[in-house]
Amino acid sequence: MATFLTKPLIVKPLQESRSEAVLRFGVIGYGYWGPNVARNLERLDETELVAVCDKSPAARRKAAKAYPDVLITADAAELLFSSEIDAIAVVTPVWTHYELAKAALENGKHVFVEKPFTSNAAQAEELIELADRKNLKIMVDHTFLFTAAVNKIKQLLQDGSLGELYYYDSTRVNLGLFQHDVNVVWDLAPHDLSIIDHLIQKTPEAISATGQTHLNGHEDVAFLTLYFPGKIIAHINVNWLSPVKVRTTLIGGEKKMLVWNDLEADEKIKIYDKGVSVSSTEGVYNLLVNYRTGDMWAPQIEQVEALHRELAYFTECILKNEVPINDGRAGLRVVRMLEAASESLRQRGALIYL
Amino acid sequence: MATFLTKPLIVKPLQESRSEAVLRFGVIGYGYWGPNVARNLERLDETELVAVCDKSPAARRKAAKAYPDVLITADAAELLFSSEIDAIAVVTPVWTHYELAKAALENGKHVFVEKPFTSNAAQAEELIELADRKNLKIMVDHTFLFTAAVNKIKQLLQDGSLGELYYYDSTRVNLGLFQHDVNVVWDLAPHDLSIIDHLIQKTPEAISATGQTHLNGHEDVAFLTLYFPGKIIAHINVNWLSPVKVRTTLIGGEKKMLVWNDLEADEKIKIYDKGVSVSSTEGVYNLLVNYRTGDMWAPQIEQVEALHRELAYFTECILKNEVPINDGRAGLRVVRMLEAASESLRQRGALIYL
Amino acid sequence: MATFLTKPLIVKPLQESRSEAVLRFGVIGYGYWGPNVARNLERLDETELVAVCDKSPAARRKAAKAYPDVLITADAAELLFSSEIDAIAVVTPVWTHYELAKAALENGKHVFVEKPFTSNAAQAEELIELADRKNLKIMVDHTFLFTAAVNKIKQLLQDGSLGELYYYDSTRVNLGLFQHDVNVVWDLAPHDLSIIDHLIQKTPEAISATGQTHLNGHEDVAFLTLYFPGKIIAHINVNWLSPVKVRTTLIGGEKKMLVWNDLEADEKIKIYDKGVSVSSTEGVYNLLVNYRTGDMWAPQIEQVEALHRELAYFTECILKNEVPINDGRAGLRVVRMLEAASESLRQRGALIYL
Amino acid sequence: MATFLTKPLIVKPLQESRSEAVLRFGVIGYGYWGPNVARNLERLDETELVAVCDKSPAARRKAAKAYPDVLITADAAELLFSSEIDAIAVVTPVWTHYELAKAALENGKHVFVEKPFTSNAAQAEELIELADRKNLKIMVDHTFLFTAAVNKIKQLLQDGSLGELYYYDSTRVNLGLFQHDVNVVWDLAPHDLSIIDHLIQKTPEAISATGQTHLNGHEDVAFLTLYFPGKIIAHINVNWLSPVKVRTTLIGGEKKMLVWNDLEADEKIKIYDKGVSVSSTEGVYNLLVNYRTGDMWAPQIEQVEALHRELAYFTECILKNEVPINDGRAGLRVVRMLEAASESLRQRGALIYL
Repeated sequence: MATFLTKPLIVKPLQESRSEAVLRFGVIGYGYWGPNVARNLERLDETELVAVCDKSPAARRKAAKAYPDVLITADAAELLFSSEIDAIAVVTPVWTHYELAKAALENGKHVFVEKPFTSNAAQAEELIELADRKNLKIMVDHTFLFTAAVNKIKQLLQDGSLGELYYYDSTRVNLGLFQHDVNVVWDLAPHDLSIIDHLIQKTPEAISATGQTHLNGHEDVAFLTLYFPGKIIAHINVNWLSPVKVRTTLIGGEKKMLVWNDLEADEKIKIYDKGVSVSSTEGVYNLLVNYRTGDMWAPQIEQVEALHRELAYFTECILKNEVPINDGRAGLRVVRMLEAASESLRQRGALIYL
Repeated sequence: MATFLTKPLIVKPLQESRSEAVLRFGVIGYGYWGPNVARNLERLDETELVAVCDKSPAARRKAAKAYPDVLITADAAELLFSSEIDAIAVVTPVWTHYELAKAALENGKHVFVEKPFTSNAAQAEELIELADRKNLKIMVDHTFLFTAAVNKIKQLLQDGSLGELYYYDSTRVNLGLFQHDVNVVWDLAPHDLSIIDHLIQKTPEAISATGQTHLNGHEDVAFLTLYFPGKIIAHINVNWLSPVKVRTTLIGGEKKMLVWNDLEADEKIKIYDKGVSVSSTEGVYNLLVNYRTGDMWAPQIEQVEALHRELAYFTECILKNEVPINDGRAGLRVVRMLEAASESLRQRGALIYL
Repeated sequence: MATFLTKPLIVKPLQESRSEAVLRFGVIGYGYWGPNVARNLERLDETELVAVCDKSPAARRKAAKAYPDVLITADAAELLFSSEIDAIAVVTPVWTHYELAKAALENGKHVFVEKPFTSNAAQAEELIELADRKNLKIMVDHTFLFTAAVNKIKQLLQDGSLGELYYYDSTRVNLGLFQHDVNVVWDLAPHDLSIIDHLIQKTPEAISATGQTHLNGHEDVAFLTLYFPGKIIAHINVNWLSPVKVRTTLIGGEKKMLVWNDLEADEKIKIYDKGVSVSSTEGVYNLLVNYRTGDMWAPQIEQVEALHRELAYFTECILKNEVPINDGRAGLRVVRMLEAASESLRQRGALIYL
Repeated sequence: MATFLTKPLIVKPLQESRSEAVLRFGVIGYGYWGPNVARNLERLDETELVAVCDKSPAARRKAAKAYPDVLITADAAELLFSSEIDAIAVVTPVWTHYELAKAALENGKHVFVEKPFTSNAAQAEELIELADRKNLKIMVDHTFLFTAAVNKIKQLLQDGSLGELYYYDSTRVNLGLFQHDVNVVWDLAPHDLSIIDHLIQKTPEAISATGQTHLNGHEDVAFLTLYFPGKIIAHINVNWLSPVKVRTTLIGGEKKMLVWNDLEADEKIKIYDKGVSVSSTEGVYNLLVNYRTGDMWAPQIEQVEALHRELAYFTECILKNEVPINDGRAGLRVVRMLEAASESLRQRGALIYL
């Protein structure tokens, strides 16, 4: 396989940092998401954007226009081997993450990696071990963990408002964008898998996944079920062939239930004071099922850019030497779920234990 | 196991039929759905409601008030063995269907049976064989096949408007009602399974089902995937623990896609002139994915009561000696899918071939 | 003009009342709304439905089928002059209300009258005076006052949750039904006018109304503005030519604001913890406008039939000799607003003082 | 009254234009909307942004960051009297439009003015006369005329799809932003007034307006009715005190009706094949009202930035010496409607003839 690092590794000196206090970042990959990472690194007080790398001339022109004072290059090595860079943001296709992150870590740089972390668990484990050894930080870009919506759900779970969790059921469908290198599971499901990992704080016992390929050889429709210890079940519906965009998650708890519609401008989360209880179980026909229905409540959700909060947090973790919640191990857990899902998908739903 | 027919079988003569031309119906079961069946049998010109049976005194009082001139009884035998009844509507819990339908057929009566047809395939096969032998009709109450919405979708598939079918993805969730004798799959999925059977006109190759039990010992959350020959995949999401009621089906075709929201009063079906095509497959990186986006169109859907149309059709099938689309064999196909789903559910998603 | 009472007034004795305690009702008018009135009078413990009158043979057949034991007649006089009837429900077109209610009151019967109360204020005043003199009750069918939604809004105003009321703005539009005898204002606005009268508890100072006639000589689109003492303003948008049905009211208060969407099944009322305040008024450019945005809350609204509650309340008012909130005077206030609106409409928005 | 042009008029030379072919623009006002005007002038091939003026240091810093090569100044005179500028965009509060536009025109510059055009009709008339005399173009920023939605509605009216127009009814409400110098009518209604002017192509005969002041001395809730020749009526509901944002317009025609919801991402316009007709008018009781209900259709609307199209069109009008549809006369028509509405508002709905 051709490597992403094809050019000879010539290190070009960067200009002097504006301040000793700041973390100097290089961004590799300036396609769809990279510009957002760069923009936030530019905005944050504690970070300095010093270099952007992309193989596409158009992307480089765009970057040069946005950041006239920043080094723009087609050669990742200029960033990876620079002594003027403290941290690298890897915002490239999945199959390049391992190689780039490894080079960055080996050269003493902290790494912010786009989700999913790596193409397989072995790569993730190696990167984690490398970072630990070098005392460097890895953060995997599980952006949703930094949204006000997920924070609110996490809080409702932690403070007991929802009661014991019953299920998490997400529908994340839209028309395209078909990816060339991964299927719809690797493209869309990492969002939910990282959220689930964050909310439930348990490793799923096993995963079953089904789906179908219609167009370009990758599954474009897929359905994942995750079995957790206890009675928690999670389900994820991802689809590149939907005429409408849907981002709706139902979360059912013993005491309350909620609907999270991420496409709503103002009322993203609606919490229903509804529940079901069973008052007797002496034989199936004596069972009394009670339904409770109360108010609905949509808490005010602050409007902040999640990526901004995430990068500020990464900076803080580096400066204070703390472990991010979305560290390499979190990334690894998601990759393991993706690997299990892929294996189950190949076997049309067969249960794969983690 | 105790049988549903506990009383001695004494046949009580019914009053004379109002006309020789009509089909005289008895309805067994006057709980949630039975009153609707009775009301429509009363309304139809070709049918006459002559008897209603229910074990519950409250249900019998209700029936007596609605139909003062009709025989109301607690004893199903009064209907099953009456020479004054031509057809029996069995609107009772699933586990009683086989016994009641068998008795009706053995006594020369056509049978309209609530969905799902029977508790297992063997029962369904026996009833089909019995009806064939006696030249009697079985209709399984797959009501949705007679809605204007399903008719419109069927037409769009048949006339090629949607192009080749890619997927059918239904979400059918709400709070309760928990059933005592069956899980959420047997309660809610028969609707979709009968619709899929009607639309796709193929038998699924295999089924994978996942789900979880939280309260009364039956699965209250479940997810089914059906693999069909070719690239068609169907998915059904059923849930008794949802804070909101959802009845939404996405259907993706090669040429067009549609969203069927059965809870919409006026615009139940929205057809999107959207599509995705792949213009080259020479290597994964040369693949060009093209998206097409055009108008949305919500056809006017006539407002008719599906059950009324279904019972009129049943009458017609009996009088003309024709085979209903939703005959015992259609009911059997759905029961086989339910059995496969149950088996897969027990094995947490293991693929069960049909 | 031909009167509604065309037949000679021959009193036919009704059958004996089932109980001395109950109020015996006759219903005049069994068209669109009359059947609901009759059904609820039949259901209530304290009332007995003893007679139904309608000039249409089809309506009488329908009534006879629903109530086999009740006197069904084409002759209103049979009800109005019967000694077996305690109260009359007048559910006929507006232009007949005065004559029928007057005859009922003169014959010692309490009167429940469909909205709007009468065709003009003079008629209403005469009926009120007559009822007072005879110590009889008039209730005008302002059904919305008995909905859980209006009750909740009333409570929020009374307990200070909304703060000082700023405005009431209702949109009540749909396709048809064109009335033959009145315009869209007399058809649809009485709902809002009676709600406003109930919520605000003040008489508007003046009304401005605009609108247009397109089809049958009556205004089919109209807009009313009511100026109340203080800063309260109310606006009502009624339209028979709308492609979609809308029943949405915005209510703005100093402390909170709400949206009442009566077409929502579950979340009819959404209360927004939002507000605007002005912190300084020293010159227009020093004015600081502050916006506050908090949670949204949809209280659980009980699902009761408003008409049932209203008729139970009417019975209670009669039996306890209490004045209903929706008595003749409430009906008169609404008629005065309608008269002012009509006059303003004729003058294309000219302000009419009440 | 203090003038906006307080500084001595010293003309500072601008740098050379990049090309002889382009129109060189100066933008006065870089607050809420100005940056959008500047950005589009920068993007267009035919225009060059050469100067930005704003009195606020913060706004100037923002402009300087966005356009490092452009003259940034606090002094409007630097733009107005520059020989290097061909056209001025006036994006300042209403009360400054007249003075700035007049100075620009007197100095030979074409003028693009924010809506509403001027504070009164006399000012507008003077500017129009001045521009005509100097052969310069005025364009008033009626941006909505350049949206795909308004274009589609215009087309449906012109090609007869909707049939004869019955009414235009717009609801344009939200929380704030309270303006300091104008009321909600001058702030929000110009959008609808310019759209109505464009769609109906007739001058309204008269206007009635009602409303109320609650907070800062300007009306924050208002309702306008416009009477047009024939049976066309228009209604505009504007409100700064609404808890929810609404941008919905109902348009009723003889043949079809439509709902334009500008907040919808994808289906902004829904066209209903619905209508009402009267088949006989021989006396009010023989009148037969017929309702027709057919399909709903949401045409694909292109996603273009209206302001971009508008500025490209302005450039074209200047270069080809053509009269824009939204010229000074269109601006004047809207100002006259606003003046009439203001007068009516003062008189609480009194009809003001235009």
